[in-house]
Formats: sequence, C-alpha cells, structure tokens
Amino acid sequence: MSDPVNDPVSDDPHSRGGPPTYRQPGAAEPSHAERTRTLLAGSTDGTLATIALDPAGHPFGSIVTFAVDADGAPLILMSSMAEHARNLDADCRASLLVSATGEGAGRLAAARATLVGEVHPVPEAEQERATQTYLDTHPAAFWARFPDFAVRRLGVSAIRYVRGFGEMSWVDVAGYPTAKPDPVAPAEAGIVAHMNADHGESLVEMTRAFLDVPGSIGEVSMLSCDRYGFEVQIAVDDHPEGHEVAFGRIGFGEPLQAADEARTAMVELVRQARAA
Amino acid sequence: MSDPVNDPVSDDPHSRGGPPTYRQPGAAEPSHAERTRTLLAGSTDGTLATIALDPAGHPFGSIVTFAVDADGAPLILMSSMAEHARNLDADCRASLLVSATGEGAGRLAAARATLVGEVHPVPEAEQERATQTYLDTHPAAFWARFPDFAVRRLGVSAIRYVRGFGEMSWVDVAGYPTAKPDPVAPAEAGIVAHMNADHGESLVEMTRAFLDVPGSIGEVSMLSCDRYGFEVQIAVDDHPEGHEVAFGRIGFGEPLQAADEARTAMVELVRQARAA
Repeated sequence: MSDPVNDPVSDDPHSRGGPPTYRQPGAAEPSHAERTRTLLAGSTDGTLATIALDPAGHPFGSIVTFAVDADGAPLILMSSMAEHARNLDADCRASLLVSATGEGAGRLAAARATLVGEVHPVPEAEQERATQTYLDTHPAAFWARFPDFAVRRLGVSAIRYVRGFGEMSWVDVAGYPTAKPDPVAPAEAGIVAHMNADHGESLVEMTRAFLDVPGSIGEVSMLSCDRYGFEVQIAVDDHPEGHEVAFGRIGFGEPLQAADEARTAMVELVRQARAA
Repeated sequence: MSDPVNDPVSDDPHSRGGPPTYRQPGAAEPSHAERTRTLLAGSTDGTLATIALDPAGHPFGSIVTFAVDADGAPLILMSSMAEHARNLDADCRASLLVSATGEGAGRLAAARATLVGEVHPVPEAEQERATQTYLDTHPAAFWARFPDFAVRRLGVSAIRYVRGFGEMSWVDVAGYPTAKPDPVAPAEAGIVAHMNADHGESLVEMTRAFLDVPGSIGEVSMLSCDRYGFEVQIAVDDHPEGHEVAFGRIGFGEPLQAADEARTAMVELVRQARAA
C-alpha cells in the first residue's frame, strides 16, 4: 500500500511538463519498499559498488549474482579472490544496484533500486543454508561449493528506488524486510499483452468510468499491472491544458493474493464500469 | 594486438578444469584496452559508482547514460539535482561499469569494464561541444539542454576488464586513449549468425587446417569475430585429456579496417585451409 513516509516524489526533471496522471479515488499502489522487494525477486544479478583498495578509496563497480533471503537481504556469492571481495575485506560498506531490463525502453525509464549497507560473510553455521538459497536461484552455479567461494549478505540500511522518469524516493527501510514481492509480477507481461491485444474496448470503458479525465478519451493501453491495480496510457482529445496523452491508475477492489486472480478482478471491474 | 602488459590472466575460478583453448600460431587478438574501447563504443548506459553523502562514505551505484569522447573518456549527462551529482560535488572519485548484454548468457559470462577515475564538469567553454557529442549518441534526450543539466567527464585512471569467465585484467591504461573501437563489432552478430547457419563445413575446414587440436574434430561453431580474427567452439572426440569441447582462435592475415572486409578475409582463409 502507498504509505506517506514513502510517497513517490516527482522531482525528476525529465518529466517536467509531461503528461498528467489521473488516479481512481482510493486506488492503492505498491509502496516503493514493495516495488524494491518485487524487483529483487525478479532479478538475479546487479552491480555491487565497493570501496577499492586500488585505486585506493575510489568507488568500484562490479557485476555480481545474488539470491534474496526471507527478509529481502541480498545473498551474494563471491570468490575470496575477486576484486570486490578483497575490497570488502578492508571496508564492508557497499551498495547493490538492481535494474529492470525493460524491452525497448531505455535504462533511464526502467525501474531500479540501490540497496546500501554493509556486506558481511554469512556465519559459518548458516553458510550451508545460504548457499542452498543461492543455488535455488542459480542452479547452474556449480562453483558455489568451490572452497574459495562463499555467500556474503548485504545488510540493508538505506534504499534509493527510482521507478523511471519522475518517480523516485528514499524507501522506508524499516518496512522493507516485511514487504512482500508482488505475486502478479511473474504474470505481468502476459496480462498487459493480453489486455492490449484483446480488450482495448474494456480498457476504454474502465478509464471512462473510473478516472476523471477532462476532455475526450480515445485509445487506452495498459502499461503495468500489480496486485493493487493497473496503469494505463490514455490518448486524450480536447484536454483543457492541451495534453494529448495522460496516464492513469485503476485499482482492484482488494489486493490480489495470486496472479491467477487478475482475470476475475478485471472482469469485475469491467462489470462495474458498464453498470456505472 | 595482444600486448604483454595487458595479457589476459586466467585467474577466474569458474573456468577451472574447463575446456582447453587452441590458437593459430601468430593469430593476433584485441588487447583489453581495445576490447574496453569497443565495449564503450557499443554502449550508451552504465552504472556510476560514487561516494554517498548519505549514508556518508558508502559507495553508491546509479544508472547513467553517456557518450564517449575522442580519447575514450565517458561524457556523462546529469542533473545537478541527481544523487550522484551531489555526491560528486563533494567527492569526485568514481567508477563507471559498462556491461555487454549477451543474449541468453548470464551476466557473469558477458564482457564488462570498470573505468575508475575522477568525474569533473566539462569546462564551460567546452560544454556545448560535449553536449553535442552526448546528443549525437542520445538524440532523444531533449532534457540535455535544461539549465540544471550538464555533461561531466570521467578522466580514466584505471580500468578493470572482464571478458567473461576466465579472462580478466587490469588494462594498460596508458594505451587506452589511442585504442580504436573495433570496426567489425557492429556487424559481429550478423557475421557469427551467417557463418553458423550457412558455413559450418568451412569452419570445420579452417579449424582442421589452422588449429593443432588433438583428437578428432566434430562440429565447429563461431563464437565471436573481431578485426583480428574469430573464435570458435569445437566438438572433439578422442581428446587425450578427455575434453569433449575446446575453444580456438583463428587470425585474419591483416587486421580488418572495416566490417565489410570480413567476407573477403574469410573466403581467403577457407582457400588457404583447402590448399593446406
């Protein structure tokens, strides 16, 4: 749920003067803690930044692979011989940048999160369990059990989340460990493609019924879908401020608990839109 | 050309006990300075690591977009309001990680380079030219001329290059500014696909003629192609050490000056292989 600590801040200059956004009253949306947790659940690699031994003191970026433990902390596999491992042995401060790879859209439009904190080796007694968690995500990584390899854990103390142009925040980090990955995320691309291919008229009906867009609504396409609802791009005619494009968010009545509930929720929204 | 300062070091534990590599005697290959320069020429975004103001002293990764100036230095566009810009105002030390996005292969198998140095604003008198260089690479970035945006330049003092599993080095940074991007790179994917689809038998002939692979050579597929030659994966039977797969590098007689010379060079190699 959107929470006040974590309300998105529109301070991104790329979006200045851009299309307006209309929200259905009461429509919830994922918090940035939830969006971060969902992004990590769908990611297996990222860029680790450490403080270099040489050139001393410089921040040093390198590619790492990780799994995520129960409270959202990245479990990073590394060899003790790796540059970043030797850097961490001297200074445990680090960050992990995880980025969505949107199709077509540039990297600046894609969601990403920087998780900042300290990286420490997982204690010996918990190493086997952490390695197994890593291997569940990376079953081909046979080197995980080589003697110089071990899992280290990033204890997250701050998170910067950038959803794309115009939406970013310092995440409510206290709420992060309990934030749940979105169950709709693995099915999102399929839902969006299906709605746009076969249900354009329903998207227009829902937009007309639930969003207070001034002007005349033309074509509507779905941009994203999550447990709380979905977002659309709307072609507008005769907008009083001259906009030809607007964005919108429409909410499901109740947050979905599983991806296969999306169909029923969407059918119900269309029914309500037609009844309105 | 491969140079001694810059000879790849096989210290990557992922490749321990992996397939052997056979090189045609005298076959040149790109230096890691050249590979880095080529990687940057084909890239438009990367991860900038800076030293955070908050949490103070932590390395902080963020996505940036860049162009490359004549001596290979990244020209990074940023708003003065961005987190990384404010970090750089306080501490100019940084690194830029640029990574190839291989199809299918994981991030650990894909080439990447970390360019380490200091980021400084391009001086006022050179700002217009730097902005134009940036816009040549990013023509859609209309915000580049917003008043709070400016191009900053990463002066490169060290480079770590990782080609993938088993090949990495600290690059000869003195040779980097004059290293030229590989002219074959933009056509590489097409050349590799064409050779594998239509010229598998020629690849086998060249491998038999030019590489001293013990055992019996089966199917051969091309993995990469550059100005100096190309690399292949070889199915081997009856290898004395029991390997079923080997890698190989075959060189063009002279480095290619343009991608469209690859066809003639390949035809000549096949002619030589049949004559041998």
